[in-house]
Amino acid sequence: MSSWVQIPKNSDFTLYNLPFGIFKSKRLSPRAGIAIGDKIVDLSVLHDEGFFSDITLLPEGIFLGDSLNSFIGLGKQVTRKIRERVQDLLKEDQEKLREHQSRGKAMVNRKEAQMLLPVKIGDYTDFYSSIEHATNVGTMFRDPDNALLPNWRHLPVGYHGRASSIIPSGIPIHRPKGQFKDPDMEKPEFGPSRRLDFELELAFVTGKSTKMGDSISTEDAEDYIFGFVLFNDWSARDIQAWEYVPLGPFLAKNFASSISPWIVTLEALEHFRVENPKQEPEVLPYLKCKKDHGFDINLEVYIQPADKKATKVCTSNFKHMYWNIAQQLAHQTSNGCNINIGDLYASGTISGKSPDSYGSMLELSWKGTKPVVLEEGGERKFIEDGDTVIMTGFCEKEGIRVGFGEVSSQVLPAK
Amino acid sequence: MSSWVQIPKNSDFTLYNLPFGIFKSKRLSPRAGIAIGDKIVDLSVLHDEGFFSDITLLPEGIFLGDSLNSFIGLGKQVTRKIRERVQDLLKEDQEKLREHQSRGKAMVNRKEAQMLLPVKIGDYTDFYSSIEHATNVGTMFRDPDNALLPNWRHLPVGYHGRASSIIPSGIPIHRPKGQFKDPDMEKPEFGPSRRLDFELELAFVTGKSTKMGDSISTEDAEDYIFGFVLFNDWSARDIQAWEYVPLGPFLAKNFASSISPWIVTLEALEHFRVENPKQEPEVLPYLKCKKDHGFDINLEVYIQPADKKATKVCTSNFKHMYWNIAQQLAHQTSNGCNINIGDLYASGTISGKSPDSYGSMLELSWKGTKPVVLEEGGERKFIEDGDTVIMTGFCEKEGIRVGFGEVSSQVLPAK
Repeated sequence: MSSWVQIPKNSDFTLYNLPFGIFKSKRLSPRAGIAIGDKIVDLSVLHDEGFFSDITLLPEGIFLGDSLNSFIGLGKQVTRKIRERVQDLLKEDQEKLREHQSRGKAMVNRKEAQMLLPVKIGDYTDFYSSIEHATNVGTMFRDPDNALLPNWRHLPVGYHGRASSIIPSGIPIHRPKGQFKDPDMEKPEFGPSRRLDFELELAFVTGKSTKMGDSISTEDAEDYIFGFVLFNDWSARDIQAWEYVPLGPFLAKNFASSISPWIVTLEALEHFRVENPKQEPEVLPYLKCKKDHGFDINLEVYIQPADKKATKVCTSNFKHMYWNIAQQLAHQTSNGCNINIGDLYASGTISGKSPDSYGSMLELSWKGTKPVVLEEGGERKFIEDGDTVIMTGFCEKEGIRVGFGEVSSQVLPAK
Repeated sequence: MSSWVQIPKNSDFTLYNLPFGIFKSKRLSPRAGIAIGDKIVDLSVLHDEGFFSDITLLPEGIFLGDSLNSFIGLGKQVTRKIRERVQDLLKEDQEKLREHQSRGKAMVNRKEAQMLLPVKIGDYTDFYSSIEHATNVGTMFRDPDNALLPNWRHLPVGYHGRASSIIPSGIPIHRPKGQFKDPDMEKPEFGPSRRLDFELELAFVTGKSTKMGDSISTEDAEDYIFGFVLFNDWSARDIQAWEYVPLGPFLAKNFASSISPWIVTLEALEHFRVENPKQEPEVLPYLKCKKDHGFDINLEVYIQPADKKATKVCTSNFKHMYWNIAQQLAHQTSNGCNINIGDLYASGTISGKSPDSYGSMLELSWKGTKPVVLEEGGERKFIEDGDTVIMTGFCEKEGIRVGFGEVSSQVLPAK
């Protein structure tokens, strides 16, 4: 499938992808778009020009505004139709848009656009679904012989995070301050975190809501999932170690989480679906799956010190996850907890088996004992001021590529 | 201070209180009101009739709509003026409203109104700030000799909860289902919780936002706090015990939290301010307070079985809290976490020293070993289907009473 839009080699935004996002520019107010190559299709322009005239799109101005929530809320039937219509219009042999007088207005240069958060996020959950990550953390901090806690293989462990501090790629963050007490310190101290870390994650966005008291089965779960973004769950390890008992991570995480701005739809990922991993012991009935819910998504993390080249520090894959998205959503709602359109559900750190596939500095540097060497000199145990952390994700199979772009954020000194 | 509105004896809604809420009725769309006696002052009517003509209230229709967020966002200078204006208008000797042709329209019977959530809640944090509660839990589940964890006296422990499932008083909840594994069970099971509990809490609502990276000092904290509501942090103890390591409570809590619908302002509580408790060891500088931030608020919990009389099971007081609201907000933002208007910050279970002041069934029945006897027969270890849990709160001093009304919710069988 090729397009009349020129798509650079290795572009994440092929005609097979067509992710949704919210952008603005110097002359354009926030609005919904679809990425294709180095361009953005301005959906409001296509709508105005009548390209969607056979599709019911209410309320007025559904593509104008600073979130996709209303649009996503129209349901998969509608969002799929829009994506397929745009796919049709962009195909090489299709002249309708290519030769249309509005083409210049409809196709915005990505370079000239600023990407915003794609959705207004109501609630955000962070799972802990990689067995390699949970095992690594358990080995480092608890008991190598009993690294996984007793509940881990029975349910997708998760907790609620802070929605207010989720930001799109490109926005720098300040190193958080906080309270910490290392084992060798007599008293806790307050100051800039000395062990700032990233966590490589993916997050899915829900596109359908439930009422309180209702649950979603694993079988129905994907009807509620609109798509995925890359997710950097920034973490301050020293703050976390001191604060997290008994109620879990709080200030160690809630200062910032960065996401990639383009939501890659489940439809675009369909081609890259892979088998669920074997779960042992057998899970309870409400967590059993009839379908495969894993996806083969290549993930990479780079650290770029100020004024230096980036070094790839991690090569992982989403297919490593023990718990899948259908199980996560079934578990989240198994008690009747209601979900809303635009909620975010992050996977937890995505680590693989090999040491270069670990999805956090905590694991890559093994608690700071094995510094990671950078290409242009220097090394890192954790993230330093001035460093930019860049995460990328893409699927590739049989010549088809579907990617996420990147989530990138620089760390500035503590305020 | 007395009013031309008849205020029943022991009413929580005196002329000294004047809390804000959102109500609707058969003929009225959702709108902002102030409670007085058995009436609600419809603020939109007073606004239309020009009673606030000297106060800038933008955008148009600020009192119409389903949340107080925009109004609260105008700042304390404005919200205080409105409250004081209404107080003036309601005073016994004031004829302006009493004799006004719009009086009938402006004064709605509380009985005819349905109370909604007062704010659109962005994020919700639950603290753990009662030393008696934390000690009780630590004694039951860990080590009576080291009941408090090492961090507890150094920071107000807290975690993020679920905003989507916070509901106003009066809405019944379904008993949650979930996974649990008691120590005597070989494998986990899934089913209706067998240990459903309440937690008696107060929550403050923020009225001012911050930017990411900024912190609030304890000295400035109250500028950011609009007022308080009663908060029932429903908890499923069996689910909690199995799921909470290492990331904290999740499904044990997020199925529902009930709040009282009237936000009692800090101004109304001023008269009941009490000294901060002594904190030992000394806290870090960012948690030190120059002012007192405690309030003498009497709290009660009742259990009412279906078709029976209610039994009071707990008599507690907010003044028992070890960590105060200024410390909680300073801690929450100490890492640069941004806050929004309408966020909710709950105190954690408010237990006192005596066994009848414990704020949860877990403590009152001491893990189910000492059932609580009900007045019309029967006993409770935890909450049973059909039970209504009612929490009330009020301040009383020198003949002045300021109260919260109640938060009441019935437990229906699992769905």
